[in-house]
Amino acid sequence: MLNRIIPNITHASRPLTTEVEATNEHGERVPTPIAGEHPLTLYIDKREIVTLMTLGQAPEALALGYLRNQRLVRSLEEIEAVQVDWDTNAVAITTRNALPNLDDKMKKRTVTTGCGQGTVFGDLMDEIDAIRLREDVRLSQATLYALLDSVRRHETIYKSAGAVHGCALASGGGDILMFVEDVGRHNAVDAIAGNMWLENIDGSDKIFYTTGRLTSEMVIKAAQMQIPFLVSRSGLTQMGHDIAMKTGITMIGRAVNKHYLLFTGKQRFVKA
Amino acid sequence: MLNRIIPNITHASRPLTTEVEATNEHGERVPTPIAGEHPLTLYIDKREIVTLMTLGQAPEALALGYLRNQRLVRSLEEIEAVQVDWDTNAVAITTRNALPNLDDKMKKRTVTTGCGQGTVFGDLMDEIDAIRLREDVRLSQATLYALLDSVRRHETIYKSAGAVHGCALASGGGDILMFVEDVGRHNAVDAIAGNMWLENIDGSDKIFYTTGRLTSEMVIKAAQMQIPFLVSRSGLTQMGHDIAMKTGITMIGRAVNKHYLLFTGKQRFVKA
Repeated sequence: MLNRIIPNITHASRPLTTEVEATNEHGERVPTPIAGEHPLTLYIDKREIVTLMTLGQAPEALALGYLRNQRLVRSLEEIEAVQVDWDTNAVAITTRNALPNLDDKMKKRTVTTGCGQGTVFGDLMDEIDAIRLREDVRLSQATLYALLDSVRRHETIYKSAGAVHGCALASGGGDILMFVEDVGRHNAVDAIAGNMWLENIDGSDKIFYTTGRLTSEMVIKAAQMQIPFLVSRSGLTQMGHDIAMKTGITMIGRAVNKHYLLFTGKQRFVKA
Repeated sequence: MLNRIIPNITHASRPLTTEVEATNEHGERVPTPIAGEHPLTLYIDKREIVTLMTLGQAPEALALGYLRNQRLVRSLEEIEAVQVDWDTNAVAITTRNALPNLDDKMKKRTVTTGCGQGTVFGDLMDEIDAIRLREDVRLSQATLYALLDSVRRHETIYKSAGAVHGCALASGGGDILMFVEDVGRHNAVDAIAGNMWLENIDGSDKIFYTTGRLTSEMVIKAAQMQIPFLVSRSGLTQMGHDIAMKTGITMIGRAVNKHYLLFTGKQRFVKA
Protein backbone atom coordinates (compact mmCIF):
# COMPACT_ATOMS: atom_id res chain seq x y z
CA MET A 1 0.00 0.00 0.00
CA LEU A 2 3.04 2.27 0.15
CA ASN A 3 3.11 5.00 -2.44
CA ARG A 4 -0.48 4.45 -3.59
CA ILE A 5 -1.54 7.49 -5.51
CA ILE A 6 -4.98 8.62 -4.35
CA PRO A 7 -6.88 11.40 -6.09
CA ASN A 8 -7.62 14.61 -4.30
CA ILE A 9 -11.33 14.32 -3.50
CA THR A 10 -14.00 16.38 -1.82
CA HIS A 11 -16.41 14.84 0.70
CA ALA A 12 -19.60 16.56 -0.32
CA SER A 13 -22.49 14.40 0.86
CA ARG A 14 -25.96 15.94 0.57
CA PRO A 15 -28.69 15.80 3.21
CA LEU A 16 -30.24 12.43 2.43
CA THR A 17 -33.86 13.00 3.30
CA THR A 18 -36.18 15.94 3.52
CA GLU A 19 -39.75 16.15 4.76
CA VAL A 20 -42.95 17.02 2.94
CA GLU A 21 -46.54 16.99 4.08
CA ALA A 22 -49.05 14.52 2.70
CA THR A 23 -52.69 13.80 3.41
CA ASN A 24 -53.66 10.20 4.12
CA GLU A 25 -56.88 8.24 3.56
CA HIS A 26 -58.30 9.55 6.84
CA GLY A 27 -57.79 13.15 5.76
CA GLU A 28 -54.95 13.50 8.29
CA ARG A 29 -51.83 15.51 7.56
CA VAL A 30 -48.81 13.23 7.60
CA PRO A 31 -45.26 14.62 7.67
CA THR A 32 -43.47 12.30 5.25
CA PRO A 33 -39.69 11.91 4.86
CA ILE A 34 -38.63 11.61 1.22
CA ALA A 35 -35.31 10.70 -0.34
CA GLY A 36 -33.18 13.40 -1.93
CA GLU A 37 -32.69 13.40 -5.69
CA HIS A 38 -30.22 15.75 -7.31
CA PRO A 39 -28.74 16.08 -10.78
CA LEU A 40 -24.96 15.64 -10.78
CA THR A 41 -23.20 16.40 -14.03
CA LEU A 42 -19.85 14.67 -14.56
CA TYR A 43 -17.08 16.53 -16.36
CA ILE A 44 -13.81 14.88 -17.31
CA ASP A 45 -11.16 17.54 -17.89
CA LYS A 46 -13.98 20.04 -18.49
CA ARG A 47 -15.74 17.83 -21.00
CA GLU A 48 -19.35 17.01 -20.07
CA ILE A 49 -19.96 13.27 -19.88
CA VAL A 50 -23.32 12.58 -18.29
CA THR A 51 -25.83 13.82 -15.73
CA LEU A 52 -26.71 11.33 -13.03
CA MET A 53 -29.69 11.74 -10.72
CA THR A 54 -28.49 10.80 -7.27
CA LEU A 55 -29.32 10.78 -3.59
CA GLY A 56 -25.92 12.38 -3.06
CA GLN A 57 -24.68 10.14 -0.27
CA ALA A 58 -21.28 9.41 -1.83
CA PRO A 59 -20.98 11.58 -4.95
CA GLU A 60 -17.19 11.26 -5.33
CA ALA A 61 -17.29 7.46 -5.10
CA LEU A 62 -20.25 7.49 -7.50
CA ALA A 63 -18.31 9.52 -10.06
CA LEU A 64 -15.26 7.28 -9.78
CA GLY A 65 -17.33 4.12 -9.92
CA TYR A 66 -19.22 5.39 -12.95
CA LEU A 67 -15.96 5.97 -14.80
CA ARG A 68 -14.70 2.57 -13.66
CA ASN A 69 -17.80 0.58 -14.61
CA GLN A 70 -18.20 2.41 -17.92
CA ARG A 71 -14.59 1.56 -18.65
CA LEU A 72 -13.79 5.21 -19.29
CA VAL A 73 -10.90 5.00 -16.82
CA ARG A 74 -8.87 1.86 -16.21
CA SER A 75 -7.04 2.70 -13.01
CA LEU A 76 -7.41 5.08 -10.10
CA GLU A 77 -3.90 6.38 -10.76
CA GLU A 78 -5.19 8.09 -13.91
CA ILE A 79 -7.31 10.42 -11.76
CA GLU A 80 -5.80 13.49 -10.16
CA ALA A 81 -8.89 15.00 -8.53
CA VAL A 82 -12.63 14.53 -8.01
CA GLN A 83 -14.28 17.77 -6.95
CA VAL A 84 -17.99 17.94 -6.24
CA ASP A 85 -19.69 21.33 -6.18
CA TRP A 86 -23.37 21.22 -5.25
CA ASP A 87 -23.81 24.92 -6.05
CA THR A 88 -23.49 23.97 -9.70
CA ASN A 89 -24.54 20.29 -9.30
CA ALA A 90 -21.26 19.31 -10.92
CA VAL A 91 -18.40 16.95 -10.30
CA ALA A 92 -15.15 17.92 -12.01
CA ILE A 93 -12.81 15.01 -12.64
CA THR A 94 -9.26 15.91 -13.53
CA THR A 95 -7.02 13.29 -15.11
CA ARG A 96 -3.22 13.20 -14.89
CA ASN A 97 -3.01 12.68 -18.63
CA ALA A 98 -5.89 13.31 -20.99
CA LEU A 99 -7.90 10.10 -21.58
CA PRO A 100 -7.29 8.49 -24.96
CA ASN A 101 -10.27 7.54 -27.15
CA LEU A 102 -12.81 9.32 -24.96
CA ASP A 103 -14.80 10.35 -28.01
CA ASP A 104 -14.98 6.82 -29.34
CA LYS A 105 -16.04 5.47 -25.97
CA MET A 106 -18.77 8.07 -25.66
CA LYS A 107 -20.19 7.34 -29.07
CA LYS A 108 -22.09 4.14 -28.57
CA ARG A 109 -24.19 4.15 -25.45
CA THR A 110 -26.94 1.81 -24.47
CA VAL A 111 -29.88 2.39 -22.21
CA THR A 112 -30.35 -0.67 -20.11
CA THR A 113 -33.49 -2.02 -18.53
CA GLY A 114 -35.02 1.20 -17.37
CA CYS A 115 -32.00 1.56 -15.20
CA GLY A 116 -29.18 2.12 -17.58
CA GLN A 117 -26.44 4.60 -17.35
CA GLY A 118 -25.72 4.47 -21.03
CA THR A 119 -23.49 1.47 -20.96
CA VAL A 120 -21.23 0.65 -23.85
CA PHE A 121 -23.22 -2.49 -24.32
CA GLY A 122 -21.48 -4.23 -27.19
CA ASP A 123 -18.09 -3.83 -25.59
CA LEU A 124 -19.39 -5.11 -22.27
CA MET A 125 -20.69 -8.30 -23.84
CA ASP A 126 -17.23 -8.91 -25.32
CA GLU A 127 -15.71 -8.41 -21.89
CA ILE A 128 -18.04 -10.91 -20.29
CA ASP A 129 -16.54 -13.73 -22.29
CA ALA A 130 -13.14 -12.90 -20.83
CA ILE A 131 -14.24 -12.82 -17.18
CA ARG A 132 -12.97 -15.62 -14.94
CA LEU A 133 -14.19 -15.56 -11.36
CA ARG A 134 -12.39 -17.34 -8.52
CA GLU A 135 -13.44 -20.93 -7.95
CA ASP A 136 -11.61 -21.50 -4.65
CA VAL A 137 -14.05 -19.49 -2.54
CA ARG A 138 -17.25 -20.63 -0.82
CA LEU A 139 -20.39 -19.07 0.61
CA SER A 140 -22.25 -20.98 3.29
CA GLN A 141 -25.94 -20.70 4.06
CA ALA A 142 -25.09 -19.52 7.57
CA THR A 143 -22.96 -16.68 6.18
CA LEU A 144 -25.74 -15.72 3.77
CA TYR A 145 -28.25 -15.52 6.63
CA ALA A 146 -25.86 -13.45 8.73
CA LEU A 147 -25.39 -11.05 5.82
CA LEU A 148 -29.14 -10.67 5.26
CA ASP A 149 -29.51 -9.86 8.93
CA SER A 150 -26.77 -7.21 8.78
CA VAL A 151 -28.25 -5.60 5.69
CA ARG A 152 -31.54 -5.11 7.50
CA ARG A 153 -29.79 -3.04 10.14
CA HIS A 154 -28.01 -0.87 7.55
CA GLU A 155 -30.92 0.40 5.47
CA THR A 156 -31.43 3.81 6.96
CA ILE A 157 -32.83 5.87 4.09
CA TYR A 158 -35.00 3.04 2.82
CA LYS A 159 -36.54 2.59 6.23
CA SER A 160 -37.36 6.26 6.69
CA ALA A 161 -38.18 7.42 3.17
CA GLY A 162 -38.28 4.45 0.81
CA ALA A 163 -37.70 5.06 -2.90
CA VAL A 164 -34.02 4.08 -2.73
CA HIS A 165 -32.00 1.01 -3.53
CA GLY A 166 -29.23 -0.27 -1.31
CA CYS A 167 -26.02 -2.10 -2.17
CA ALA A 168 -23.52 -3.70 0.16
CA LEU A 169 -20.06 -5.13 -0.28
CA ALA A 170 -19.40 -7.84 2.29
CA SER A 171 -16.35 -9.89 3.18
CA GLY A 172 -16.34 -13.62 2.51
CA GLY A 173 -17.33 -14.01 6.16
CA GLY A 174 -20.46 -11.91 5.64
CA ASP A 175 -19.32 -8.70 7.35
CA ILE A 176 -20.52 -5.57 5.59
CA LEU A 177 -17.54 -3.50 4.45
CA MET A 178 -19.54 -0.73 2.80
CA PHE A 179 -23.19 0.07 2.29
CA VAL A 180 -24.54 2.68 -0.13
CA GLU A 181 -28.10 3.74 -0.84
CA ASP A 182 -29.17 5.78 -3.86
CA VAL A 183 -32.30 6.67 -5.78
CA GLY A 184 -30.83 4.72 -8.69
CA ARG A 185 -29.71 1.18 -8.09
CA HIS A 186 -26.91 1.46 -10.63
CA ASN A 187 -25.66 4.52 -8.83
CA ALA A 188 -25.42 2.50 -5.64
CA VAL A 189 -23.40 -0.18 -7.46
CA ASP A 190 -21.15 2.41 -9.02
CA ALA A 191 -20.53 4.10 -5.68
CA ILE A 192 -19.44 0.73 -4.26
CA ALA A 193 -17.08 0.28 -7.21
CA GLY A 194 -15.64 3.74 -6.62
CA ASN A 195 -15.15 3.09 -2.93
CA MET A 196 -13.42 -0.21 -3.71
CA TRP A 197 -10.93 1.72 -5.81
CA LEU A 198 -10.38 4.37 -3.15
CA GLU A 199 -9.88 1.77 -0.43
CA ASN A 200 -7.93 -0.58 -2.68
CA ILE A 201 -10.27 -3.51 -2.07
CA ASP A 202 -10.08 -6.60 -4.26
CA GLY A 203 -13.49 -8.07 -5.12
CA SER A 204 -12.45 -11.63 -5.86
CA ASP A 205 -13.46 -13.11 -2.49
CA LYS A 206 -16.32 -10.74 -1.66
CA ILE A 207 -20.11 -10.88 -1.63
CA PHE A 208 -22.15 -8.23 -3.39
CA TYR A 209 -25.66 -7.60 -2.07
CA THR A 210 -28.31 -5.48 -3.79
CA THR A 211 -31.93 -4.74 -3.00
CA GLY A 212 -32.50 -4.30 -6.74
CA ARG A 213 -33.42 -6.76 -9.42
CA LEU A 214 -30.82 -8.96 -11.05
CA THR A 215 -30.94 -7.54 -14.56
CA SER A 216 -28.22 -7.93 -17.17
CA GLU A 217 -26.39 -4.79 -16.12
CA MET A 218 -26.33 -5.68 -12.44
CA VAL A 219 -24.77 -9.07 -13.16
CA ILE A 220 -22.27 -7.57 -15.59
CA LYS A 221 -21.11 -5.00 -13.06
CA ALA A 222 -20.64 -7.52 -10.27
CA ALA A 223 -18.68 -9.80 -12.55
CA GLN A 224 -16.56 -6.91 -13.81
CA MET A 225 -15.59 -6.20 -10.23
CA GLN A 226 -14.45 -9.87 -10.06
CA ILE A 227 -16.99 -10.57 -7.31
CA PRO A 228 -18.00 -14.27 -7.29
CA PHE A 229 -21.13 -13.92 -5.11
CA LEU A 230 -24.18 -11.83 -6.04
CA VAL A 231 -27.17 -11.74 -3.70
CA SER A 232 -30.45 -9.89 -4.15
CA ARG A 233 -33.67 -9.46 -2.25
CA SER A 234 -35.47 -9.25 -5.60
CA GLY A 235 -35.99 -11.42 -8.63
CA LEU A 236 -34.10 -11.73 -11.87
CA THR A 237 -34.56 -11.32 -15.58
CA GLN A 238 -33.81 -13.73 -18.37
CA MET A 239 -30.72 -11.85 -19.52
CA GLY A 240 -29.48 -11.48 -15.95
CA HIS A 241 -29.71 -15.25 -15.74
CA ASP A 242 -28.02 -15.80 -19.11
CA ILE A 243 -25.08 -13.61 -18.17
CA ALA A 244 -24.81 -15.21 -14.75
CA MET A 245 -24.55 -18.59 -16.46
CA LYS A 246 -21.88 -17.27 -18.82
CA THR A 247 -19.72 -15.74 -16.13
CA GLY A 248 -20.34 -18.61 -13.68
CA ILE A 249 -21.12 -16.15 -10.90
CA THR A 250 -22.89 -17.58 -7.85
CA MET A 251 -26.23 -15.78 -8.01
CA ILE A 252 -28.89 -15.87 -5.31
CA GLY A 253 -32.25 -14.11 -5.60
CA ARG A 254 -35.32 -13.59 -3.41
CA ALA A 255 -33.04 -13.63 -0.39
CA VAL A 256 -35.04 -12.43 2.61
CA ASN A 257 -34.79 -13.70 6.17
CA LYS A 258 -34.20 -17.44 5.83
CA HIS A 259 -35.43 -17.84 2.29
CA TYR A 260 -33.51 -17.71 -0.96
CA LEU A 261 -33.28 -19.13 -4.44
CA LEU A 262 -29.85 -20.21 -5.68
CA PHE A 263 -29.77 -19.83 -9.45
CA THR A 264 -26.26 -20.22 -10.80
CA GLY A 265 -22.72 -21.00 -9.72
CA LYS A 266 -24.02 -23.59 -7.27
CA GLN A 267 -20.58 -25.16 -6.86
CA ARG A 268 -19.47 -22.25 -4.64
CA PHE A 269 -22.45 -22.53 -2.29
CA VAL A 270 -22.38 -24.72 0.80
CA LYS A 271 -25.72 -25.47 2.39
CA ALA A 272 -24.43 -27.23 5.49
CA MET B 1 -60.77 10.52 -36.64
CA LEU B 2 -61.34 10.37 -40.39
CA ASN B 3 -58.20 10.28 -42.45
CA ARG B 4 -55.89 9.70 -39.47
CA ILE B 5 -52.56 8.57 -40.80
CA ILE B 6 -51.34 5.55 -38.84
CA PRO B 7 -47.85 4.12 -39.32
CA ASN B 8 -47.39 0.66 -40.69
CA ILE B 9 -46.39 -1.38 -37.65
CA THR B 10 -45.49 -4.94 -36.81
CA HIS B 11 -46.98 -6.75 -33.80
CA ALA B 12 -43.91 -8.58 -32.60
CA SER B 13 -44.46 -9.35 -28.92
CA ARG B 14 -41.89 -11.68 -27.31
CA PRO B 15 -42.70 -14.56 -24.96
CA LEU B 16 -42.92 -12.71 -21.65
CA THR B 17 -41.60 -15.28 -19.21
CA THR B 18 -39.33 -18.25 -19.35
CA GLU B 19 -38.51 -20.83 -16.69
CA VAL B 20 -35.24 -21.64 -14.98
CA GLU B 21 -34.44 -24.00 -12.17
CA ALA B 22 -33.34 -22.73 -8.78
CA THR B 23 -32.50 -24.42 -5.50
CA ASN B 24 -34.22 -23.15 -2.38
CA GLU B 25 -33.20 -23.07 1.30
CA HIS B 26 -34.41 -26.64 1.78
CA GLY B 27 -32.20 -27.88 -1.03
CA GLU B 28 -35.26 -28.44 -3.21
CA ARG B 29 -35.26 -27.79 -6.94
CA VAL B 30 -37.76 -25.04 -7.74
CA PRO B 31 -38.84 -24.30 -11.33
CA THR B 32 -38.90 -20.50 -11.35
CA PRO B 33 -40.56 -18.28 -13.97
CA ILE B 34 -38.43 -15.25 -14.87
CA ALA B 35 -39.22 -12.16 -16.90
CA GLY B 36 -37.80 -11.82 -20.39
CA GLU B 37 -35.17 -9.14 -21.04
CA HIS B 38 -34.03 -8.39 -24.55
CA PRO B 39 -31.96 -5.66 -26.16
CA LEU B 40 -33.92 -3.67 -28.73
CA THR B 41 -31.94 -1.21 -30.80
CA LEU B 42 -33.88 1.72 -32.25
CA TYR B 43 -32.96 3.02 -35.69
CA ILE B 44 -34.55 6.13 -37.17
CA ASP B 45 -34.12 6.11 -40.93
CA LYS B 46 -31.20 3.69 -40.48
CA ARG B 47 -29.50 5.88 -37.89
CA GLU B 48 -28.89 4.10 -34.56
CA ILE B 49 -30.46 5.99 -31.66
CA VAL B 50 -30.38 3.83 -28.54
CA THR B 51 -30.58 0.28 -27.26
CA LEU B 52 -33.36 -0.38 -24.76
CA MET B 53 -33.52 -3.49 -22.61
CA THR B 54 -37.13 -4.62 -22.66
CA LEU B 55 -39.53 -7.38 -21.74
CA GLY B 56 -40.78 -7.14 -25.31
CA GLN B 57 -44.51 -7.04 -24.59
CA ALA B 58 -45.24 -4.03 -26.81
CA PRO B 59 -42.04 -3.17 -28.68
CA GLU B 60 -43.67 -1.00 -31.37
CA ALA B 61 -45.54 1.12 -28.81
CA LEU B 62 -42.32 1.30 -26.77
CA ALA B 63 -40.36 2.63 -29.75
CA LEU B 64 -43.04 5.20 -30.58
CA GLY B 65 -43.41 6.28 -26.96
CA TYR B 66 -39.65 6.61 -26.58
CA LEU B 67 -39.51 8.93 -29.57
CA ARG B 68 -42.50 10.85 -28.24
CA ASN B 69 -41.26 11.25 -24.67
CA GLN B 70 -37.73 12.10 -25.80
CA ARG B 71 -39.26 14.77 -28.05
CA LEU B 72 -37.48 13.32 -31.06
CA VAL B 73 -40.79 13.15 -32.92
CA ARG B 74 -43.65 15.60 -32.37
CA SER B 75 -46.53 13.84 -34.06
CA LEU B 76 -47.46 10.33 -35.12
CA GLU B 77 -48.02 11.58 -38.65
CA GLU B 78 -44.25 11.98 -39.04
CA ILE B 79 -43.82 8.20 -38.79
CA GLU B 80 -44.31 5.98 -41.80
CA ALA B 81 -43.43 2.61 -40.32
CA VAL B 82 -42.28 0.84 -37.14
CA GLN B 83 -40.83 -2.57 -37.91
CA VAL B 84 -39.55 -4.83 -35.15
CA ASP B 85 -37.26 -7.70 -36.07
CA TRP B 86 -36.27 -9.92 -33.13
CA ASP B 87 -33.77 -11.84 -35.28
CA THR B 88 -31.59 -8.75 -35.16
CA ASN B 89 -33.09 -7.25 -31.96
CA ALA B 90 -33.85 -4.12 -33.92
CA VAL B 91 -36.75 -1.78 -34.51
CA ALA B 92 -36.52 0.22 -37.72
CA ILE B 93 -38.48 3.46 -37.66
CA THR B 94 -39.05 5.12 -41.01
CA THR B 95 -40.11 8.76 -41.13
CA ARG B 96 -42.07 10.41 -43.91
CA ASN B 97 -39.60 13.28 -44.02
CA ALA B 98 -36.16 13.13 -42.41
CA LEU B 99 -36.27 14.52 -38.86
CA PRO B 100 -34.74 17.98 -38.53
CA ASN B 101 -32.16 18.65 -35.80
CA LEU B 102 -31.79 14.98 -34.88
CA ASP B 103 -28.07 15.44 -34.30
CA ASP B 104 -28.62 18.37 -31.96
CA LYS B 105 -31.27 16.50 -30.03
CA MET B 106 -29.04 13.47 -29.62
CA LYS B 107 -26.13 15.49 -28.32
CA LYS B 108 -27.09 16.26 -24.76
CA ARG B 109 -28.46 13.27 -22.96
CA THR B 110 -28.99 12.78 -19.29
CA VAL B 111 -29.05 9.63 -17.26
CA THR B 112 -31.81 9.90 -14.75
CA THR B 113 -32.15 8.28 -11.37
CA GLY B 114 -30.83 4.87 -12.22
CA CYS B 115 -33.71 4.60 -14.58
CA GLY B 116 -33.01 7.12 -17.26
CA GLN B 117 -33.30 6.69 -20.92
CA GLY B 118 -30.92 9.48 -21.69
CA THR B 119 -33.39 12.29 -21.40
CA VAL B 120 -32.62 15.70 -22.79
CA PHE B 121 -32.75 17.04 -19.28
CA GLY B 122 -32.23 20.75 -19.71
CA ASP B 123 -34.87 20.98 -22.41
CA LEU B 124 -37.32 18.99 -20.34
CA MET B 125 -36.98 21.36 -17.41
CA ASP B 126 -37.79 24.27 -19.71
CA GLU B 127 -40.85 22.44 -20.95
CA ILE B 128 -42.11 21.84 -17.44
CA ASP B 129 -42.60 25.54 -16.88
CA ALA B 130 -44.91 25.63 -19.89
CA ILE B 131 -47.10 22.70 -18.84
CA ARG B 132 -50.67 23.51 -17.80
CA LEU B 133 -52.79 20.58 -16.65
CA ARG B 134 -56.58 20.64 -16.64
CA GLU B 135 -58.18 21.97 -13.46
CA ASP B 136 -61.80 21.00 -14.24
CA VAL B 137 -61.31 17.29 -13.53
CA ARG B 138 -61.65 15.41 -10.25
CA LEU B 139 -60.53 12.10 -8.77
CA SER B 140 -62.57 10.66 -5.91
CA GLN B 141 -61.28 8.31 -3.24
CA ALA B 142 -63.82 5.71 -4.40
CA THR B 143 -62.46 5.85 -7.97
CA LEU B 144 -58.90 5.57 -6.66
CA TYR B 145 -59.78 2.43 -4.68
CA ALA B 146 -61.55 0.92 -7.68
CA LEU B 147 -58.47 1.57 -9.82
CA LEU B 148 -56.12 -0.03 -7.27
CA ASP B 149 -58.34 -3.07 -7.24
CA SER B 150 -58.31 -3.32 -11.05
CA VAL B 151 -54.54 -2.97 -11.20
CA ARG B 152 -54.15 -5.95 -8.90
CA ARG B 153 -56.01 -8.12 -11.38
CA HIS B 154 -53.90 -6.95 -14.32
CA GLU B 155 -50.39 -7.69 -13.09
CA THR B 156 -49.70 -10.95 -14.83
CA ILE B 157 -45.93 -10.98 -15.31
CA TYR B 158 -45.25 -9.43 -11.93
CA LYS B 159 -47.30 -12.07 -10.20
CA SER B 160 -45.61 -14.97 -11.92
CA ALA B 161 -42.04 -13.77 -12.33
CA GLY B 162 -41.55 -10.48 -10.51
CA ALA B 163 -38.73 -8.18 -11.63
CA VAL B 164 -41.02 -6.01 -13.76
CA HIS B 165 -42.79 -2.70 -13.34
CA GLY B 166 -46.35 -2.10 -14.44
CA CYS B 167 -48.03 1.04 -15.73
CA ALA B 168 -51.70 1.64 -16.42
CA LEU B 169 -53.65 4.36 -18.13
CA ALA B 170 -57.14 4.65 -16.70
CA SER B 171 -60.19 6.70 -17.59
CA GLY B 172 -61.39 9.40 -15.21
CA GLY B 173 -63.87 6.82 -13.95
CA GLY B 174 -61.04 4.45 -12.99
CA ASP B 175 -61.39 1.91 -15.82
CA ILE B 176 -58.06 0.60 -17.08
CA LEU B 177 -57.66 1.46 -20.76
CA MET B 178 -54.21 -0.07 -21.17
CA PHE B 179 -51.74 -1.89 -18.97
CA VAL B 180 -48.08 -2.52 -19.82
CA GLU B 181 -45.39 -4.32 -17.88
CA ASP B 182 -41.68 -4.09 -18.61
CA VAL B 183 -38.35 -4.82 -16.97
CA GLY B 184 -37.75 -1.06 -17.03
CA ARG B 185 -40.36 1.20 -15.53
CA HIS B 186 -39.60 3.95 -18.04
CA ASN B 187 -40.13 1.50 -20.84
CA ALA B 188 -43.59 0.77 -19.46
CA VAL B 189 -44.39 4.50 -19.38
CA ASP B 190 -43.09 4.97 -22.90
CA ALA B 191 -45.13 2.06 -24.21
CA ILE B 192 -48.25 3.67 -22.74
CA ALA B 193 -47.32 6.95 -24.44
CA GLY B 194 -46.85 5.13 -27.73
CA ASN B 195 -50.19 3.35 -27.40
CA MET B 196 -51.91 6.65 -26.62
CA TRP B 197 -50.59 7.98 -29.92
CA LEU B 198 -51.66 4.91 -31.86
CA GLU B 199 -55.14 4.93 -30.35
CA ASN B 200 -55.42 8.71 -30.47
CA ILE B 201 -56.15 9.02 -26.75
CA ASP B 202 -55.98 12.42 -25.04
CA GLY B 203 -54.41 12.30 -21.57
CA SER B 204 -55.96 15.42 -20.10
CA ASP B 205 -58.71 13.65 -18.11
CA LYS B 206 -56.92 10.38 -17.43
CA ILE B 207 -55.23 8.71 -14.47
CA PHE B 208 -51.72 7.32 -14.77
CA TYR B 209 -50.79 4.47 -12.44
CA THR B 210 -47.28 3.09 -11.94
CA THR B 211 -45.84 0.47 -9.63
CA GLY B 212 -42.56 2.38 -9.76
CA ARG B 213 -41.21 5.20 -7.67
CA LEU B 214 -42.21 8.79 -8.34
CA THR B 215 -38.84 10.14 -9.43
CA SER B 216 -38.32 13.32 -11.43
CA GLU B 217 -38.53 11.58 -14.77
CA MET B 218 -41.76 9.75 -13.96
CA VAL B 219 -43.51 12.98 -13.00
CA ILE B 220 -42.15 14.80 -16.06
CA LYS B 221 -43.42 12.12 -18.41
CA ALA B 222 -46.92 12.04 -16.91
CA ALA B 223 -47.16 15.83 -17.08
CA GLN B 224 -45.86 15.86 -20.67
CA MET B 225 -48.70 13.54 -21.58
CA GLN B 226 -51.05 16.16 -20.05
CA ILE B 227 -52.25 13.64 -17.47
CA PRO B 228 -53.49 15.41 -14.30
CA PHE B 229 -53.51 12.36 -11.98
CA LEU B 230 -50.42 10.31 -11.11
CA VAL B 231 -50.75 7.36 -8.72
CA SER B 232 -48.01 5.03 -7.48
CA ARG B 233 -47.76 2.07 -5.19
CA SER B 234 -44.29 3.29 -4.21
CA GLY B 235 -42.74 6.35 -2.63
CA LEU B 236 -41.31 9.49 -4.12
CA THR B 237 -38.11 11.46 -4.32
CA GLN B 238 -37.45 15.08 -3.54
CA MET B 239 -37.17 16.10 -7.17
CA GLY B 240 -40.28 14.13 -8.08
CA HIS B 241 -42.05 16.15 -5.43
CA ASP B 242 -40.55 19.45 -6.62
CA ILE B 243 -41.64 18.86 -10.20
CA ALA B 244 -45.10 17.72 -9.10
CA MET B 245 -45.46 21.01 -7.22
CA LYS B 246 -44.32 22.96 -10.29
CA THR B 247 -46.68 21.27 -12.71
CA GLY B 248 -49.54 21.14 -10.19
CA ILE B 249 -50.15 17.48 -10.98
CA THR B 250 -52.29 15.54 -8.48
CA MET B 251 -49.77 13.04 -7.13
CA ILE B 252 -50.62 10.12 -4.86
CA GLY B 253 -48.01 7.72 -3.48
CA ARG B 254 -47.99 4.56 -1.34
CA ALA B 255 -51.36 3.69 -2.82
CA VAL B 256 -52.14 0.09 -1.85
CA ASN B 257 -55.54 -1.33 -0.94
CA LYS B 258 -57.28 1.40 1.03
CA HIS B 259 -54.20 3.39 1.96
CA TYR B 260 -52.59 6.30 0.16
CA LEU B 261 -50.70 9.53 0.64
CA LEU B 262 -51.87 12.55 -1.35
CA PHE B 263 -48.89 14.81 -1.95
CA THR B 264 -49.69 17.53 -4.45
CA GLY B 265 -52.53 18.95 -6.52
CA LYS B 266 -54.95 18.31 -3.67
CA GLN B 267 -57.59 20.58 -5.23
CA ARG B 268 -58.45 17.87 -7.79
CA PHE B 269 -58.95 15.14 -5.18
CA VAL B 270 -62.33 14.50 -3.58
CA LYS B 271 -62.31 12.40 -0.45
CA ALA B 272 -66.08 12.05 -0.08
